[in-house]
Amino acid sequence: MRQPFPFSAIVGQDAMKTAMVLTAIDPGIGGVLVFGDRGTGKSTAVRALAALLPPIEAVEGCPVNSARRELCPDWALITSDRIITKPTPVVDLPLGVTEDRVVGALDIERALTRGEKAFEPGLLARANRGYLYIDEVNLLEDHIVDLLLDVAQSGENVVEREGLSIRHPARFVLVGSGNPEEGELRPQLLDRFGLSVEVTSPRDIDTRVEVIKRRDAYENDHETFMSLWRPMDAGLRNQILAAREALPKLDTPNTTLHDCAALCIALGSDGLRGELTLLRAARALAAFEGAPAVARSHLRAVAPMALSHRLRRDPLDEAGSGARVARSLTEVLP
Amino acid sequence: MRQPFPFSAIVGQDAMKTAMVLTAIDPGIGGVLVFGDRGTGKSTAVRALAALLPPIEAVEGCPVNSARRELCPDWALITSDRIITKPTPVVDLPLGVTEDRVVGALDIERALTRGEKAFEPGLLARANRGYLYIDEVNLLEDHIVDLLLDVAQSGENVVEREGLSIRHPARFVLVGSGNPEEGELRPQLLDRFGLSVEVTSPRDIDTRVEVIKRRDAYENDHETFMSLWRPMDAGLRNQILAAREALPKLDTPNTTLHDCAALCIALGSDGLRGELTLLRAARALAAFEGAPAVARSHLRAVAPMALSHRLRRDPLDEAGSGARVARSLTEVLP
Amino acid sequence: MRQPFPFSAIVGQDAMKTAMVLTAIDPGIGGVLVFGDRGTGKSTAVRALAALLPPIEAVEGCPVNSARRELCPDWALITSDRIITKPTPVVDLPLGVTEDRVVGALDIERALTRGEKAFEPGLLARANRGYLYIDEVNLLEDHIVDLLLDVAQSGENVVEREGLSIRHPARFVLVGSGNPEEGELRPQLLDRFGLSVEVTSPRDIDTRVEVIKRRDAYENDHETFMSLWRPMDAGLRNQILAAREALPKLDTPNTTLHDCAALCIALGSDGLRGELTLLRAARALAAFEGAPAVARSHLRAVAPMALSHRLRRDPLDEAGSGARVARSLTEVLP
Amino acid sequence: MRQPFPFSAIVGQDAMKTAMVLTAIDPGIGGVLVFGDRGTGKSTAVRALAALLPPIEAVEGCPVNSARRELCPDWALITSDRIITKPTPVVDLPLGVTEDRVVGALDIERALTRGEKAFEPGLLARANRGYLYIDEVNLLEDHIVDLLLDVAQSGENVVEREGLSIRHPARFVLVGSGNPEEGELRPQLLDRFGLSVEVTSPRDIDTRVEVIKRRDAYENDHETFMSLWRPMDAGLRNQILAAREALPKLDTPNTTLHDCAALCIALGSDGLRGELTLLRAARALAAFEGAPAVARSHLRAVAPMALSHRLRRDPLDEAGSGARVARSLTEVLP
Amino acid sequence: MRQPFPFSAIVGQDAMKTAMVLTAIDPGIGGVLVFGDRGTGKSTAVRALAALLPPIEAVEGCPVNSARRELCPDWALITSDRIITKPTPVVDLPLGVTEDRVVGALDIERALTRGEKAFEPGLLARANRGYLYIDEVNLLEDHIVDLLLDVAQSGENVVEREGLSIRHPARFVLVGSGNPEEGELRPQLLDRFGLSVEVTSPRDIDTRVEVIKRRDAYENDHETFMSLWRPMDAGLRNQILAAREALPKLDTPNTTLHDCAALCIALGSDGLRGELTLLRAARALAAFEGAPAVARSHLRAVAPMALSHRLRRDPLDEAGSGARVARSLTEVLP
Amino acid sequence: MRQPFPFSAIVGQDAMKTAMVLTAIDPGIGGVLVFGDRGTGKSTAVRALAALLPPIEAVEGCPVNSARRELCPDWALITSDRIITKPTPVVDLPLGVTEDRVVGALDIERALTRGEKAFEPGLLARANRGYLYIDEVNLLEDHIVDLLLDVAQSGENVVEREGLSIRHPARFVLVGSGNPEEGELRPQLLDRFGLSVEVTSPRDIDTRVEVIKRRDAYENDHETFMSLWRPMDAGLRNQILAAREALPKLDTPNTTLHDCAALCIALGSDGLRGELTLLRAARALAAFEGAPAVARSHLRAVAPMALSHRLRRDPLDEAGSGARVARSLTEVLP
Repeated sequence: MRQPFPFSAIVGQDAMKTAMVLTAIDPGIGGVLVFGDRGTGKSTAVRALAALLPPIEAVEGCPVNSARRELCPDWALITSDRIITKPTPVVDLPLGVTEDRVVGALDIERALTRGEKAFEPGLLARANRGYLYIDEVNLLEDHIVDLLLDVAQSGENVVEREGLSIRHPARFVLVGSGNPEEGELRPQLLDRFGLSVEVTSPRDIDTRVEVIKRRDAYENDHETFMSLWRPMDAGLRNQILAAREALPKLDTPNTTLHDCAALCIALGSDGLRGELTLLRAARALAAFEGAPAVARSHLRAVAPMALSHRLRRDPLDEAGSGARVARSLTEVLP
Repeated sequence: MRQPFPFSAIVGQDAMKTAMVLTAIDPGIGGVLVFGDRGTGKSTAVRALAALLPPIEAVEGCPVNSARRELCPDWALITSDRIITKPTPVVDLPLGVTEDRVVGALDIERALTRGEKAFEPGLLARANRGYLYIDEVNLLEDHIVDLLLDVAQSGENVVEREGLSIRHPARFVLVGSGNPEEGELRPQLLDRFGLSVEVTSPRDIDTRVEVIKRRDAYENDHETFMSLWRPMDAGLRNQILAAREALPKLDTPNTTLHDCAALCIALGSDGLRGELTLLRAARALAAFEGAPAVARSHLRAVAPMALSHRLRRDPLDEAGSGARVARSLTEVLP
Repeated sequence: MRQPFPFSAIVGQDAMKTAMVLTAIDPGIGGVLVFGDRGTGKSTAVRALAALLPPIEAVEGCPVNSARRELCPDWALITSDRIITKPTPVVDLPLGVTEDRVVGALDIERALTRGEKAFEPGLLARANRGYLYIDEVNLLEDHIVDLLLDVAQSGENVVEREGLSIRHPARFVLVGSGNPEEGELRPQLLDRFGLSVEVTSPRDIDTRVEVIKRRDAYENDHETFMSLWRPMDAGLRNQILAAREALPKLDTPNTTLHDCAALCIALGSDGLRGELTLLRAARALAAFEGAPAVARSHLRAVAPMALSHRLRRDPLDEAGSGARVARSLTEVLP
Repeated sequence: MRQPFPFSAIVGQDAMKTAMVLTAIDPGIGGVLVFGDRGTGKSTAVRALAALLPPIEAVEGCPVNSARRELCPDWALITSDRIITKPTPVVDLPLGVTEDRVVGALDIERALTRGEKAFEPGLLARANRGYLYIDEVNLLEDHIVDLLLDVAQSGENVVEREGLSIRHPARFVLVGSGNPEEGELRPQLLDRFGLSVEVTSPRDIDTRVEVIKRRDAYENDHETFMSLWRPMDAGLRNQILAAREALPKLDTPNTTLHDCAALCIALGSDGLRGELTLLRAARALAAFEGAPAVARSHLRAVAPMALSHRLRRDPLDEAGSGARVARSLTEVLP
Repeated sequence: MRQPFPFSAIVGQDAMKTAMVLTAIDPGIGGVLVFGDRGTGKSTAVRALAALLPPIEAVEGCPVNSARRELCPDWALITSDRIITKPTPVVDLPLGVTEDRVVGALDIERALTRGEKAFEPGLLARANRGYLYIDEVNLLEDHIVDLLLDVAQSGENVVEREGLSIRHPARFVLVGSGNPEEGELRPQLLDRFGLSVEVTSPRDIDTRVEVIKRRDAYENDHETFMSLWRPMDAGLRNQILAAREALPKLDTPNTTLHDCAALCIALGSDGLRGELTLLRAARALAAFEGAPAVARSHLRAVAPMALSHRLRRDPLDEAGSGARVARSLTEVLP
Repeated sequence: MRQPFPFSAIVGQDAMKTAMVLTAIDPGIGGVLVFGDRGTGKSTAVRALAALLPPIEAVEGCPVNSARRELCPDWALITSDRIITKPTPVVDLPLGVTEDRVVGALDIERALTRGEKAFEPGLLARANRGYLYIDEVNLLEDHIVDLLLDVAQSGENVVEREGLSIRHPARFVLVGSGNPEEGELRPQLLDRFGLSVEVTSPRDIDTRVEVIKRRDAYENDHETFMSLWRPMDAGLRNQILAAREALPKLDTPNTTLHDCAALCIALGSDGLRGELTLLRAARALAAFEGAPAVARSHLRAVAPMALSHRLRRDPLDEAGSGARVARSLTEVLP
């Protein structure tokens, strides 16, 4: 089986790549929503992410990848104490997936007749401490989306059926792709993704030739191509690990908070999730860059991805949300 | 696990906080409906309420938190006589919840074959003597909402299936949040909530910075933050307990009744629930303030939250319902 | 548990109270439909009615309240011959009720395997010889409404499942409340209610203060309040019992029939149910007043409640149906 | 239990009464469709018909009322050879009836496991040799109506389930009532009823007073009223029996066929069912009147009920279908 | 039981009768679609066809009427080797028929537990080597129609359930009737019927009188009528048998192919099914007439029924499809 | 049983035939979508393709046609080691097919109770290494189409039910036919077919006569006709086999990549699938023609089928997508 396309070998698409890297540094930023036409390499990027992410340490056989034996759920029969290293999980949510398959299936019958908790963990268990990818999030049924966002926020999956109750940690970053031409997402839902980015097809010949060349090499000369790019991915992975360590020690000046609030008021964004995400993403970026403190430049860099999906539609302002964020940045954080 | 955000540390949002406190003094006022954009901290407030509320005394193991052994339902197998102290229950109604999960599940099969009453109590049992919170009440199915309001009004949950009948007390205060942009609530339904309040994002920078700061401290310096606010919540809790004791002794002058009627007639509110709620809420407020009798100032303070969701839409009057209540207050209770 | 609010203590709402009293004198008049805004005390009135109605004598343990042992249904296992006195049943039809719960559940399985008729009587059995109340009749599913009206008319409930057949008497008066703002009722359905009345909120301060006062006394000084009004209800109950006895002996002059027909022709009411109900209601009113014969005054008094829900909509006549009945009364029965 | 209202005591409504009598003479005419507002006594008339119809002779215990033992279906366990006299069946089709209840239920399980044909006959079996009444035929589900019309035409009910097949005679006259205001019937369906009539409320006072008087006497002085009208019904019944015998001997002149065709062509009625029904109904009427041959007067009398529901809607002709039949009669059969 | 109305005694309707005869000569022509108003005798004609068709020889007890023992399906338990003569099957597809009843029911349970192929053949089995009639094909569910057309084309019925597979020959001619007023048929579907004809009510008196007379004689003087027409049907049957034998020897001149193509191009009919059907139908007609070769006259005679349901709607040409075919015939094949 | 119509004997329709041949050389090009009116021989062509394709070598009894024993799925019980030669599979997807039948049925019950993996492979298994044909892809349910495209892209079928998981290779070329008049395909879906071609009825007489003649000969003189065309199909098959071998050695000049990108930018096609398919199809064509390297002529030849279904609709450009591709070819690759 071929290995995934290397993350570093993706041509362009910088906003998307940055957003994914930031959530790898601080998963608390929340999910990433990738808007874009078909064929722009969204699912290639997610599969590439899987290979980029730093590995995790987990108890062998633990269905939720717990780091320590005592964190494994009580319904799981763990027979080993060994800690193993495994890739950060990236779980793909198939279209038309059932709720049982997502949250896990509880066999009431068995539980009642034998007194055993009979729980078959689902995709949420598998995604714990990793990523959950939804291709074409706008085609997913509403109740599944609501369920995913609720679990993503609470970090815990609770399955209750007829009085039985099973729970396990389910901390993951949601990555969703969506095609804006196929129906809009509810604002309520948009707001619960941490970051959003847009991807488009490159419009100049050289870039496109480069894309075709790399893809061609990947398919027809696989091993040579992979050995060329593997070190690049390794470097990026190390930079992420360093940023994770730097993050708690990072300084956040008071003016940064003030800038966040001023920008959000200027944009008229509802609620306070905008400010909080903006702050967290800026910190992660600062850590990634190795800066000692968050600076206005970090805010400016992440504001579009943290805020543009939280603007109310303004019927008198024909500019797109990206342009509106850019304009406010110029005015408020010059 | 982190403790909930302290109720007292919520910045602003005074109407919402007052409404919640009033129902803690007199649960007979009925539910609270909180209107507001996403991200305005509605669910944070409800979780905060859980920590604020005075504890209750209940029989150990009683599924409906009964205060005395003889009040426990006959279908519950209570094996202990001990009275324990436990937090006032605040139960969260998950989106997409089934009717069985709400009212409890009656296992007819078992009942018929073994002659046992086989009842698995639901969320209504757990919420007895406490609060039931519904996020986005406008997304809940109509028949579940009707069921909740019926039980909330009668104070009793009756489950009947094929001739079997189970009942238990279910006295709780309903707290619902709703986003007015996502579909209106039926007037019939609005009328059955006691109070309604609106919450909005703060629009000045200092307030917003304060919100971010507190949230940031709560997340990154949890223990220090909690120890700072815990005494504030305790003080508020004591004030609520004192108001509960003062309430029955409170004087209600005849002019108060007259004021209530005059105000409701001026506003053209349907039915008489407006007057009755207005009166009860004003009494609770007077008790909270330690006043010996209800005064016009109390009526004026609670009228917006008791009445503004009960006005008919007036196509000739473009003012919002809040403004219409304010105008009538100026004219009728100057 | 608190007793219901006394019927006599209801302030105003005379048409509704009269209509209910008339059906207590002659249940053959048919059901009562109460139109009105929310909060106008419709369900309070029905619960009050339950306490007002004269008690009935019934065989102990008979599921349909039969007056004599030989009238009990053959599927009921009656073990006692005692005749007991019990309140006139007033049965509340819950929203979302299933057909099985209404008509009774027939356990085919049991019947087939053990040869026993296994019938669990439903709400229609319980309502026999009494009242069946439907709050918000316009929210009930059509097939349940049709079923209720069919049984109400035939006075018998027949449950047939796969060749088995169970039947029992089900004579009751249907009381339905409806909010005209929430969707109209089909004319077919309207026509099958005997009487209709409208209730509205009182619009003068003194009446409303009186309502609040009584309600407040009922809630906060329950026993005193009840002892004040109990004799009033008793008097009304006796007057109903006297009217029942007088009814068969009442004289109906030929001019009364002529008046009925003339009025209905003038109003253009479809069919003949209008005349027949008008006649029956006028007789009951005459008996209630102790008059020896039906007089034109009785017709005039009951015509609005017997006819206004049977008028066709007249696009050229903007007057409401109540006004049209009043106008025809002035012209036809001056 | 009270006996049904006497057919002869119905005031007016001559077309409806004639149509019903004609089908009693020659059931091959097909069903009768009664159009009319609510409250015009349609269901009273059908119940009256049940009492009017001549009794039939049938094998005791035969589920399809067969006249001779050898005609009883083979799946029926007939234990008696006695021929008994019983009323012509008039079966009422309840609203919301299931297909199983109509055609009969075939217990495949039993048939497979025990090798027995396990058939529970339905309403179609009971209606054999009689009448099947559908109140509000426009509210019945389409597939049930199609099924009824198919069986009514073929005279046989065939129930087939997974390779098992049960059949029994099901010759009956369908009587349907419909309210034209509640949705039209498909032309396909209209065409398959033999006759159609319209009933309306009487519009003069004396007739209405007469209706009320008779109804009042029927309810309040039941026995006297019934003994007054019973002989009238008996006379009518004998006249029907005489007509049945005269029918096969009746002469049909060639000019009658010509008249039928000419009238239908003038009216532009689709297909040939119009002519055939017109001819049969005219013959039955002639037999009822004791005439030796069909005359033009008979055609004229039955043409409106045989043809008016078979006209295509003519957008250029505003006259109702009744008026169009009348006009064509004047022109074609002067 | 009465025998069906004789095919030869049908008055007029020549196109329909010819189309049916042609498919009896060469079933490969495909189905016949009969358009027409209700009451024009479509289903009478199909039942008449059943009596007209030449009998077939088949293995006794074979569920698919196979001509030789080795052609019987392997799942059928044939115990006899006798060849019997039986009528050409004409199977009636009931409205609302289930898919299982059409294709046959495969009892998976039995097959799995006992290892037996448990197949209950359906209507398609019964129709093999005969006709399948669908009344009101436009009312049939789409998936049943698709299924029928697929089987009709492939000549084989394959039932597959969970890995089990049953197959049997199912060669039949589909005859469908449709009322164009009740919804159109999809062009895709129209194209898959070989021929289409239109039937209308006769518009002159003498024809209609003749129809009534024959129908009347058929009903009231059955035996005389049948003995009159039986020889006519026998003659027609023999002519069909002779044509079947002549068909393979028939000459098809090259100009005939050229004519077919020219006509279809002129008409702009999609695809090539038009030409192929036209050719086959013309050959069958030539064989029926005993001609040695196909002539232009045969093409002209069958072109309307072979092509008029295959024309695209032409918004600029108001002529009906029949008129358009006639016009092209005049121009292209003068 | 007759053999399929020979691929080489199809008159005209060159684009369709070329597209099918190209996918036979490089299945990685993706599926082929054939647009066209009914009756243009689309399904004839697919059945012809089955006979044309080179045979494959596969393990005897392997449900997915694996080439070597170790590639057979572990759930299949393979008892033989023999390698047999069999036709390239061409699987027909019936309309209304269930998901179970497509992906295979997993018998959970059996798996749970006996611990066996009980999998009944579906059509996807059978299609491995071959073709899957969907007639009227626009009538297939969306979720089945999505499923097919997902499997076609990943080359693997994964069936997961309640925690059990079965997988097997499913590499096949999807061939879909669609009638553009019966509803459009979603752009998302169009983009995932590799090539698209249009077929139309020939419009000149000679071609049509040729079609009828060949068809007629195929039906009436089957053996002669087949022996005439069999060698032509064999030659084409050998050419395909030669092209497969030549493909990996083919040279792809840099200017070709540049041409691909320039053309796609000029056409404004979304994403990069256009370029990649264009390149692959041009290579396959070059190999088919025996050329040493891809030339601009190859790009020009396959551009219409590789790109025309990937254009956005341009409201200002009325030219069809085929014309737009042609125009861009003239401008960009002159």
